[in-house]
Amino acid sequence: MSNAEAAPSRVIAVYIYPGLTALDAIGPYEILRGLPGAVAQFVAEARGPIAADSGFLRLHADLACAEVAQADILIVPGGNAPAQMKNPAALDWLRRIHATTRWTLSVCTGSLILAAAGILAGGAAATHWSARETLLQFGVAPSRARVTRQGKIITAAGVSAGIDAALALAALECDQATAELMQLFVEYAPEPPFKAGTPETADPRVVDRARAFLRRAYPA
Amino acid sequence: MSNAEAAPSRVIAVYIYPGLTALDAIGPYEILRGLPGAVAQFVAEARGPIAADSGFLRLHADLACAEVAQADILIVPGGNAPAQMKNPAALDWLRRIHATTRWTLSVCTGSLILAAAGILAGGAAATHWSARETLLQFGVAPSRARVTRQGKIITAAGVSAGIDAALALAALECDQATAELMQLFVEYAPEPPFKAGTPETADPRVVDRARAFLRRAYPA
Repeated sequence: MSNAEAAPSRVIAVYIYPGLTALDAIGPYEILRGLPGAVAQFVAEARGPIAADSGFLRLHADLACAEVAQADILIVPGGNAPAQMKNPAALDWLRRIHATTRWTLSVCTGSLILAAAGILAGGAAATHWSARETLLQFGVAPSRARVTRQGKIITAAGVSAGIDAALALAALECDQATAELMQLFVEYAPEPPFKAGTPETADPRVVDRARAFLRRAYPA
Repeated sequence: MSNAEAAPSRVIAVYIYPGLTALDAIGPYEILRGLPGAVAQFVAEARGPIAADSGFLRLHADLACAEVAQADILIVPGGNAPAQMKNPAALDWLRRIHATTRWTLSVCTGSLILAAAGILAGGAAATHWSARETLLQFGVAPSRARVTRQGKIITAAGVSAGIDAALALAALECDQATAELMQLFVEYAPEPPFKAGTPETADPRVVDRARAFLRRAYPA
């Protein structure tokens, strides 16, 4: 950290809120926090511990939204997105930070929050597979790609897709070799033991169970 | 949470400590916390916020080691492992919890901590690619597999490998369909944009840069 001033600083603001899915935020954080000069900030409406959707984990927000006026990269995770989609103060802050970023990255249902803020308006975007219909209600075409770029807005599919998206973002922000350095740091040579990562490849009974799990985890 | 008593409870203890790599812990947590009856507990030597290796993030420990005497699944992340390898109280707690688990999962250099505790003794285990020599010093053969099982001990390679390992563990603990449900929940159909996820596949210049990055991040 003492060397942060040696390189041009890159401020990465990770917006966290009650009910977020922790991996949505931590995947991209772990990739991007290692970029040269990176300074990652976990930001919430108020400072302090923020409970994730499971109820079993709290991430600490070191800064309140009111203390952050600019970011080079903004990360918006998913999870209990509906509460944020109805939160005018959060949407206003996201709009103001987005106006200052080079890159705005949503993961999972974070793209619904960007759509509710009017940051995503039209075009195509990725989201969690279970939320494609909701994105469509905002006039945004749900992409089935794992990572979708629209100008400076990058949207990732569900949860773990934030890792792929952050690697793509790292290459755009720096260069491919730097992105590869971070890929090697996190030893990202995935070998999923099963093929159930998308609703198109999963057994239909697994899809049904997942929908029931999601209804319990994120009641409308 | 109100339904936790309906299913047999599975206690998942995630050991966190200053300098841990957050994704090592959060990847497996996000998979396993959704198993039926799962209760995840973030445990540290003392309750309160625990700073990750980047210095940019704090995870909250809700329980102190002294408050936790049993776990069905124990997760030991990597990061600043050397400090834990020289921490007799931590090693003693890990030994005592391991004696009560059905599964003990290390991620990244977490396997060095298991080796220092004598939990891993002989056989083969996975670790971060940069730590293979260190594991060998404990008489444990470093496996190049992404996930290695030795009885009830499952070791994952670096950082992101904890996701693959947790999916394998979920299938062992429950059944394949339940593991697939969690894979679909986190939409784990990875598409790394580059092939630099292992030192064998990365450009040698990227490996050199990664070694320098690691020396700065984790001074010996």
